[in-house]
Amino acid sequence: MHNNRKVNFSCPSGFPEFLPGEKRLELYLLDTIRRVFERYGFTPIETPTVERLEVLQAKGNQGDNIIYGINPILPNVSETLVGSKKEERGLKFDQTVPLAAYIARHFHELTFPFARYQMDMVFRGERAKDGRYRQFRQCDIDVLGRGKLSLLYDAQIPAIIAEIFDEIKIGDFLIRINNRKILTGFFQSIGLVGDKIASSLRIIDGAEKMGIPKVQAALTGEGLSPEQVKKVLAFTSIGGAVDEVLAKLQDMAGDNSLMEEGIKELETVITGVRHLGVPEERFSVDLSIVRGLDYYTGTVYETTLIGNEALGSICSGGRYEGLVGTFVGEKIPGVGISIGLTRLMSRLLKGGILKSLSPTPTQVMVVNQSEDLIPLYLKVSQQLRQGGLNAVTNFDKRSLKKQLQQADRLGIPFCIIIGEMEASKSSCGLKDLRRGEQVEVSLQELVPEVLKRL
Amino acid sequence: MHNNRKVNFSCPSGFPEFLPGEKRLELYLLDTIRRVFERYGFTPIETPTVERLEVLQAKGNQGDNIIYGINPILPNVSETLVGSKKEERGLKFDQTVPLAAYIARHFHELTFPFARYQMDMVFRGERAKDGRYRQFRQCDIDVLGRGKLSLLYDAQIPAIIAEIFDEIKIGDFLIRINNRKILTGFFQSIGLVGDKIASSLRIIDGAEKMGIPKVQAALTGEGLSPEQVKKVLAFTSIGGAVDEVLAKLQDMAGDNSLMEEGIKELETVITGVRHLGVPEERFSVDLSIVRGLDYYTGTVYETTLIGNEALGSICSGGRYEGLVGTFVGEKIPGVGISIGLTRLMSRLLKGGILKSLSPTPTQVMVVNQSEDLIPLYLKVSQQLRQGGLNAVTNFDKRSLKKQLQQADRLGIPFCIIIGEMEASKSSCGLKDLRRGEQVEVSLQELVPEVLKRL
Repeated sequence: MHNNRKVNFSCPSGFPEFLPGEKRLELYLLDTIRRVFERYGFTPIETPTVERLEVLQAKGNQGDNIIYGINPILPNVSETLVGSKKEERGLKFDQTVPLAAYIARHFHELTFPFARYQMDMVFRGERAKDGRYRQFRQCDIDVLGRGKLSLLYDAQIPAIIAEIFDEIKIGDFLIRINNRKILTGFFQSIGLVGDKIASSLRIIDGAEKMGIPKVQAALTGEGLSPEQVKKVLAFTSIGGAVDEVLAKLQDMAGDNSLMEEGIKELETVITGVRHLGVPEERFSVDLSIVRGLDYYTGTVYETTLIGNEALGSICSGGRYEGLVGTFVGEKIPGVGISIGLTRLMSRLLKGGILKSLSPTPTQVMVVNQSEDLIPLYLKVSQQLRQGGLNAVTNFDKRSLKKQLQQADRLGIPFCIIIGEMEASKSSCGLKDLRRGEQVEVSLQELVPEVLKRL
Repeated sequence: MHNNRKVNFSCPSGFPEFLPGEKRLELYLLDTIRRVFERYGFTPIETPTVERLEVLQAKGNQGDNIIYGINPILPNVSETLVGSKKEERGLKFDQTVPLAAYIARHFHELTFPFARYQMDMVFRGERAKDGRYRQFRQCDIDVLGRGKLSLLYDAQIPAIIAEIFDEIKIGDFLIRINNRKILTGFFQSIGLVGDKIASSLRIIDGAEKMGIPKVQAALTGEGLSPEQVKKVLAFTSIGGAVDEVLAKLQDMAGDNSLMEEGIKELETVITGVRHLGVPEERFSVDLSIVRGLDYYTGTVYETTLIGNEALGSICSGGRYEGLVGTFVGEKIPGVGISIGLTRLMSRLLKGGILKSLSPTPTQVMVVNQSEDLIPLYLKVSQQLRQGGLNAVTNFDKRSLKKQLQQADRLGIPFCIIIGEMEASKSSCGLKDLRRGEQVEVSLQELVPEVLKRL
């Protein structure tokens, strides 16, 4: 056990780990997302990584996620799994089922509508392939109502998505909005019933990746007549400006009451989105958006990065009725979205759309020119920190050139150079590595001088 | 599986979960701690929650921590654990062993000295009792050198501890500093060897909780002579001002070379701590500090909350030589500390030393007085958000009184009241719930008016 040369210390497959510059980027993204969530009044919660298996499986293994079970391993009984069968537990695979449990656990301590955000790690025992991870961070918001929830909460969602991706600056994106009732009602109106509606919805959900011929074949395979297939394809390809799509829907609204309800909801949502000032180019009505998961019942959203559609949806969600109230036995409708941050970030990094930050938050390096001056270096470093700057002191004495090179390699923008001469004058050399210039500054003026150039 | 009324949705025992006001406090603490860490140039990393078992057990189960093993559970094969025996994996129980693996995995991508912070969740399959958790967050920093590491890094640690706890405002605290070489050398100087030194160190480590008679008995039980016991007790009770303790140590320094080395190191550290401006009342030299874990070799720290000593050490750590280099087969000395944040926070909450924040980050609630005015409410809410304020719009129409009560209960400091009259004048009522006053403000002036009162 102590012959460490034989230990395979690599990351377990599918469990990602970032270099400091990447982790710093993740923290920047998390901070940005969190700030927007809080701006809309969402409050943070965090549920345990571990839940009872019966909770995790209460809604079935959504999306065929494989749950990781956990079992304590007794120390010194290497490689033996000893589990009590009394309480089987596993790692959470999403944040929606745990949210339902959280609501049940704290039902009388919470105020509704309850708007929460959550940015925890989730775990899925899938085969690690195709950029899929077994551990990743999801950034979720949901707002939940007791018995009812205004559609205007659905309208806020695109405003929040737009604000986040505008702040992150990843280029143009399109929030595609639909309402499941429209498509379901449309399927009813052309004579589909029961399972055929569900399977047709699933086919439309995958249509973008499949292409029209395959969709045609799949729908036919489900038993739809050529006439029905034609109608479905015509319907889901209705496109154009938001108002044009809404007008076309209006013309069809009388055909089916569910469809009519869906269209009314969609109009309310779009009106709200406009009142919230979301730019017109940021959203569309897209009748082909379904969302795979079964639990959505109304508004659904996907977000596409324009020019990088192959990334898939970078932020999705929708409205659901029956999910969160499960454990309390009450109707708690909700609407929410999820950003799969780990996957999104690693794909944006790979695609060159985002860049790692520098590998350290340090803004100023106090260079070591003389062991005798270390007390002064420590004092100056503290002065910089008290001024709100991130600073390091070099304790190892090396050539000035090497120290500056190190700062440069780490992306540290400033170096403070103090030799005997500067020390005697209570001044220092302030080297600005980005501009390649150096000025002499009195130690008293140091903090404002650095802040000015930052 | 879908008969949800039978599901036990409670948290698994030992896995804590917080209400929003507590989670907001945790985020505030994390932000504060992180800011201080970054001010000293520490950069963030995060290692996976899951590591290979051989990595987790490479240094033995430190402190007898019970590791949680994980195994995928196939969907729809309820309650059956199906594990591949090829790669046994478990949840990390601390952040030090994973740090060693991280260093090995990225050895040539990192620059040394490498100063990192890490604030991940760790997992221990212990019996959940006595305020111990099975999942908790640790806030760790470590700085690592290749081959050598200046003692001035040890001196920075108390500066960092002092800055964190001063910012968190939890009252007076004392950072107790020692060097393991001193106590080990002292034991050598009174004639102890081998295992007796290790077991005596462990007894001294627990001495504070045991009281003198039990320590006496325990040392005697280890085979120490009455004379030796007397010397040990006299030595570890050396107290007083830092310089007095150092002077007393100086007098004894010639007795043993290891002890002499430890005293020199301690003096260097204390000198550095003073140059860094740590207030004298914040630190002491305490010869009874040992730290339980075996891997510390030099400087050790504990931090006590004055008046709340029963909480135990709120921040501890030290210097180690052989730990992190394990997997790379190189000497990588380090010095670091750990704050067990989950436990600390819940104890400080229980003790009334910290208070939960309000249950929402919302600063302004736009009250709903009329459905017709919702477009205006949405616009005003966006105006507030663009001004940097966290705002919610009330979509449900209820009495003004009830809406104000809700804001008050949630600790939202401001409400915006707009009826037909205010709307016609492009103004609003700005209700300051903390001061209990209301003023009329033009909508144009709303953001600066709120910011002024915040």
